[in-house]
Amino acid sequence: MYCPQPMLHLIQCLSALPGIGEKTATRLALYIMNQTEADALQLARSILEVKEKVHLCSRCFNFADSVECAICRNPSRDAHLLCVVETPGDLMAIEKAGHYKGLYHVLHGAIAPLDGVGPDQLKIKELLQRVSAEAMQEIILATNPTVSGNASALYISQQLISAGVRITRIAQGVPSGGDIEYIDEGTLRSAFDGRREMK
Amino acid sequence: MYCPQPMLHLIQCLSALPGIGEKTATRLALYIMNQTEADALQLARSILEVKEKVHLCSRCFNFADSVECAICRNPSRDAHLLCVVETPGDLMAIEKAGHYKGLYHVLHGAIAPLDGVGPDQLKIKELLQRVSAEAMQEIILATNPTVSGNASALYISQQLISAGVRITRIAQGVPSGGDIEYIDEGTLRSAFDGRREMK
Repeated sequence: MYCPQPMLHLIQCLSALPGIGEKTATRLALYIMNQTEADALQLARSILEVKEKVHLCSRCFNFADSVECAICRNPSRDAHLLCVVETPGDLMAIEKAGHYKGLYHVLHGAIAPLDGVGPDQLKIKELLQRVSAEAMQEIILATNPTVSGNASALYISQQLISAGVRITRIAQGVPSGGDIEYIDEGTLRSAFDGRREMK
Repeated sequence: MYCPQPMLHLIQCLSALPGIGEKTATRLALYIMNQTEADALQLARSILEVKEKVHLCSRCFNFADSVECAICRNPSRDAHLLCVVETPGDLMAIEKAGHYKGLYHVLHGAIAPLDGVGPDQLKIKELLQRVSAEAMQEIILATNPTVSGNASALYISQQLISAGVRITRIAQGVPSGGDIEYIDEGTLRSAFDGRREMK
């Protein structure tokens, strides 16, 4: 494909992003070429700034632009409740839902021995330290309902048995708005196993 | 949605790109956060470089990283053949097809009076100057087969009547691999109007 070297390079860099193939990358590069100098500069700067200014929160390992993240610093959050998630993206989704008002702990992955990820590669040691240091009443394990997410939840719950704290796992069942006809067997089994009394 | 200010800003900048909504922008921002410093730097630099180093070719108005673009500078291209396109993206698509070996002229748009785009907003004056200055034998009008693309082709062909040069329009018909059952009426009409003898 003909185009000037700097454009080819931009297309290559954009293609490296997830879900962006060569066609989309070309479209984006052409768009950036037609953007004003100021808009392109802002985009480039925002990429640099995010790497420069955003680090992991020293307490919960969420993304933060100061030593502790805005959630850990917020005195109105319930400090007795801790939700354990795999990634900052999971945390953002739960925050967007807006219902949960406790604190978080981000593992940065899940146990997957075949990919070389064991408990030591995750923030599990830090989680155990937090639970013994902070006065937690409940740990909600909100890792993904996948093999590795379930394995992580199981591992953590075993490590925390002696901590004398309530440990819960988020419910697995039919998603809201779902159509039972098209829901997979595993999910249906979870939905029946986890059924609750109608009140 | 909770996330650090620099991440929110990056998400905003990415959402401004075409075809990228807030969800995709968030996914990309999370990916960039997990990229190495070097990869993110390279992405940011490639955006700045494309704006810094890529300009319009002084002859055909394609994107170029020197005064003239690589196609205009290439002595093996047929300088008697000129293909008129709306955008550098159109040019790239034709180059990718790899069949055309002449030169180009990029209009940077098409005549659309309702959007305030008349002949003076396009590189039409420059096209007429080129045709009279360079020894062209054929002008292929490859603007889009749309109302404004057709209007631009018609306008240019009228302006070039006195130039004594062959003026052609790319064929409109059924696209290769298409299914006649699902092809729109306008395209089918063009395909019948433009039918050719089987040899």
